[in-house]
Amino acid sequence: MDCDYRIYGDIKSGNCYKIQLLMSLLDIPHDWVHIDILAHQTHTSSFRAMNKNAKIPVLEIDGDTYLCESNAILNFLAEGSSYMPSSGLARARVLQWQFFEQYSHEPYIAVARFINKYLGLPEDRHDEYLSKQGGGHKALNVMDGQLSETPFFVGEQPTLADISLYAYTHVADEGGFDLGGYPHIDQWLARIESLPGYVSMP
Amino acid sequence: MDCDYRIYGDIKSGNCYKIQLLMSLLDIPHDWVHIDILAHQTHTSSFRAMNKNAKIPVLEIDGDTYLCESNAILNFLAEGSSYMPSSGLARARVLQWQFFEQYSHEPYIAVARFINKYLGLPEDRHDEYLSKQGGGHKALNVMDGQLSETPFFVGEQPTLADISLYAYTHVADEGGFDLGGYPHIDQWLARIESLPGYVSMP
Repeated sequence: MDCDYRIYGDIKSGNCYKIQLLMSLLDIPHDWVHIDILAHQTHTSSFRAMNKNAKIPVLEIDGDTYLCESNAILNFLAEGSSYMPSSGLARARVLQWQFFEQYSHEPYIAVARFINKYLGLPEDRHDEYLSKQGGGHKALNVMDGQLSETPFFVGEQPTLADISLYAYTHVADEGGFDLGGYPHIDQWLARIESLPGYVSMP
Repeated sequence: MDCDYRIYGDIKSGNCYKIQLLMSLLDIPHDWVHIDILAHQTHTSSFRAMNKNAKIPVLEIDGDTYLCESNAILNFLAEGSSYMPSSGLARARVLQWQFFEQYSHEPYIAVARFINKYLGLPEDRHDEYLSKQGGGHKALNVMDGQLSETPFFVGEQPTLADISLYAYTHVADEGGFDLGGYPHIDQWLARIESLPGYVSMP
C-alpha cells in the first residue's frame, strides 16, 4: 500500500532539497508545505508537535506520523530501491558518508552558505563565516579523494551517500567555496545532474 | 563466518566508547588499538590510509577493510540483532536519533567536555566552552521530552539510538552539564546501566 507523504521544508535548504531530489529520482508523489525559518515557523507549538527539535525537514506519513532528520527520511524513502543497499558493508558505507555529511560537511558549507545567502553576510557573523572555510575545504578534499577512486561515493552506482552530499556541495559557491580545485567533485556533480529524474534546486 | 574486528580509538571518547559498549552487549570479540588524538596520531599517513577524514573511531574488518563514523560502525555491527530494527519506520526512527546525536548533541556536549576534560579548559577556549552550553541543554530537553513518553528512544526496547545517545550523555557533567533537571534522562541512564553485558567507560 502506498503512503501519503507531505514534506514540511524550505526547498532552498539543502537538507530539504535532498528529499525532493530523491523523491523525484524515485518518482514518489508528495505534497510540499513551505516553512519559513527566518519567520520562526519551526518554533510554533504546532511545528514542535511534529519535531521537538524544531528543525526542517519533517516527513508526514499518512497524516499522523512524523519522521525527522533529513538523512533518516532518505533512508526511509529509499528502502528497497537501488539507492540504498539492503545490508552489510555497502549499507554501512552509505551511512558512513551520510554521517560524514552531517558532522564534517554541513556545519561548515551549509552554515557558511546560510550566513551569506539567507542572512546577507552581516558584519556580526563575518568572523564565523570565515571560520567555516577551513572545515569546508577539508570536507571537500576528503570527498575529492574518494571520487578520484570511484565514480560515486560507494562504488559504481549512485546511492543515498551521493544524494546527501550533492545537496549542499552543488551550491557550495554560495558559501564562498570555489570548487575549481576539486576536479573529481566537478565530474561527479555532472554525473548526478544526468541521472533520469534529476531535479534542480529552484 | 565470523569476522576479525579491531577498533582504533580512545575509550574515553564517547564516539569510541559507544562501539565498545555495543560490542560488550552483543558479546563480539575484538582487539582495541589506542589512538592518542592529542599526540596527532590520527594525522599520520598510515592513519589517513584508514580514514581520509583523520578521525577516530575506525573499525578494521579482517585486516584489510576499514569503516569510519561511529554510528555507521554501530549499524554494521548490530545488523540482525535486537538493537537495530531491520526495516521500515522503526529503523528510520533509530537513524533519526543517531543523526540528532551527531548534529544537535555531540557538537555541544562532547565538544564542551573535550575542552574541559582533555584540554583543561584553557583561557583561549573559555568563550567557546560557554557557547556550547545552550545547544547542549536544548538537546537534553529534546531527549527528556521523548523519554517522558517511552522508556527507550524508540519504544519499549533499547536500540542503537540509546547506545549512541548514552555515550556522551552519561558523562555530560564533564562538559559542565548538570543533569539534575532531567528526571527522565536520569531514569533512562539507569535502565541502560542495568542491561546484561553493560560495560562502563573506564
